[in-house]
Amino acid sequence: MAEHAIFEAGDVPLQSGLVLPAVRVVYCTHGRLNAARDNAIVYPTHYMGTHDSNAWAIGPGQALDPEKYFIIIPDMLGNGVSSSPSNTPAPFDGPRFPLVTVRDNVLLQHRLVTEIFGLTTLALVTGHSMGALQTFQWGALFPDMVQRIAPFCGAARVSRHNWLFLEGCKSALIAAGDFAGGDYTAPPVAGIRAFARVYAGWAWSQTFFRQQLDRERLGLPSMEDFLNWAWEPAFQACDANNLLAMLATWQAADISADPRFDGDLAKALAAISARAVVMPCRSDQYFPPEDSEIEVAHMQNAELRVIPSVWGHMAGGGLNPEDAMFINAALLALLAETV
Amino acid sequence: MAEHAIFEAGDVPLQSGLVLPAVRVVYCTHGRLNAARDNAIVYPTHYMGTHDSNAWAIGPGQALDPEKYFIIIPDMLGNGVSSSPSNTPAPFDGPRFPLVTVRDNVLLQHRLVTEIFGLTTLALVTGHSMGALQTFQWGALFPDMVQRIAPFCGAARVSRHNWLFLEGCKSALIAAGDFAGGDYTAPPVAGIRAFARVYAGWAWSQTFFRQQLDRERLGLPSMEDFLNWAWEPAFQACDANNLLAMLATWQAADISADPRFDGDLAKALAAISARAVVMPCRSDQYFPPEDSEIEVAHMQNAELRVIPSVWGHMAGGGLNPEDAMFINAALLALLAETV
Repeated sequence: MAEHAIFEAGDVPLQSGLVLPAVRVVYCTHGRLNAARDNAIVYPTHYMGTHDSNAWAIGPGQALDPEKYFIIIPDMLGNGVSSSPSNTPAPFDGPRFPLVTVRDNVLLQHRLVTEIFGLTTLALVTGHSMGALQTFQWGALFPDMVQRIAPFCGAARVSRHNWLFLEGCKSALIAAGDFAGGDYTAPPVAGIRAFARVYAGWAWSQTFFRQQLDRERLGLPSMEDFLNWAWEPAFQACDANNLLAMLATWQAADISADPRFDGDLAKALAAISARAVVMPCRSDQYFPPEDSEIEVAHMQNAELRVIPSVWGHMAGGGLNPEDAMFINAALLALLAETV
Repeated sequence: MAEHAIFEAGDVPLQSGLVLPAVRVVYCTHGRLNAARDNAIVYPTHYMGTHDSNAWAIGPGQALDPEKYFIIIPDMLGNGVSSSPSNTPAPFDGPRFPLVTVRDNVLLQHRLVTEIFGLTTLALVTGHSMGALQTFQWGALFPDMVQRIAPFCGAARVSRHNWLFLEGCKSALIAAGDFAGGDYTAPPVAGIRAFARVYAGWAWSQTFFRQQLDRERLGLPSMEDFLNWAWEPAFQACDANNLLAMLATWQAADISADPRFDGDLAKALAAISARAVVMPCRSDQYFPPEDSEIEVAHMQNAELRVIPSVWGHMAGGGLNPEDAMFINAALLALLAETV
């Protein structure tokens, strides 16, 4: 069903002013573009995710139905598939990979959908977590092109507390004995373990563990099982510099960092004209609903729909069927709206 | 006003089965014991705290009034003042310091107040955070002796999520290149920096930073100022093995880990007959009010009073006058009750 391909973007000027040479954006598509070219959906990836990580939300009968829509999943830079520290040659290899912003990613995605597919309209942009960061960015940068957005468990600008949680994760990895300033010759297993363990406390909610859903729903008898067998391997599968590159993208996320908005978040949010359904999770420790509520108040045509879940940030990850159904129902209703 | 002294406890059998030789408990007292010997208050220390850290809550006109009460502040083991990795000789020095539980601390404190001061009753036991862990433990171990307890920002048993947050902090320190398995020859500055930065995300709430109270109330213009100048120095002033010893005490906290209760937390809570006011902070990320609510429901004579603050766990640290006044008012009312 899904095909994937590479968009060779050439030498790309970044938001930072640097030029990253020979940039590649890997992407996959589900479904077919219709004759009117108006059934495309962009669904960017989340932290540590690749195009495959989004597959849970796509399928016949789901909102993201490949029989109706042409769904494009672009791999975020830094994820090890698109241009990343792990696959970029010197002088931008490893720890020398430059800051790539959410804006840089979305401008590349815009080139992809216009240059490769000739699109002038997108029915929907949606995404989880860092995918939601990219979703807000699409809405702010291309209001005339994006008909609908549905960011879930994300934000238009990383909050200062969210920055701080990420700074903790980063600090653990870069202080590790085997990280060697990013010029490791073997994977820094101890550093990644520390990173994963710091991260673990944030991903679910206090209530998730109080209700022992890690045991009952994830089937993991002990916290050590949870950490060692379920959680850490996903991090150990990543390159450490890639983890840090994506983290830097996340920490810098801010749709108002744009000459048009000059750091004014309210102004940037007000530029989003797409019909929007913003879905934070009630118990998300990184992107609490209070932040989303402020965002929605500044947007032109947005609705707040809080995912009523104790799964914290992971409510948007497709692991919990109830949360996946909540998101799917919201996307179905949104796509059915005439905008 | 305050005097401090050393209780030489001798060789102490620990809950783990090990015997820790020549244990010292440092303590300080405020005020005087009355003739009836019924005006004593025990106020144990919190993580990284010493007897001086509790001074903010003590003073004429405050609930903890040294003109009315004899206030004993015992230094928790591991805090660098009482027996700790940093001051214990081989074979229990540094990383070889054994697990000392909250129960071990409270049994030592019981010996202190009975052997040194001949007490048979305590008007109140109160404490913040790990001081609250010790407060619950006092209530469960010595129901006939303790008239009142007022734990704030703490719990009777560390929650599984709280354990996980601590595990993240610990992982960052032990993975650091300069920690050297605890046998460092100079302070592991990089490891402690990572530890502090991981910890920082947990201590306040998301809302505290959203409202920019770090800038407005702590007077710190940037997150880097907050981390480098306000937060990290307190951690760098600690010995790394001491940080880990206290953390191990915290992670193991469980009043039901006792032959009488056999791991049954409800049973252990039901053994607490003291009049109790349990004060979690609404926005505490380690000890959320939902946990306290469950505890209070099992206790004989307990009331839940939630600190209505966005200062998170730090609501109990005396930094915010409103929170300090809330706690003080609750202690005043509690001490005025005839029990």
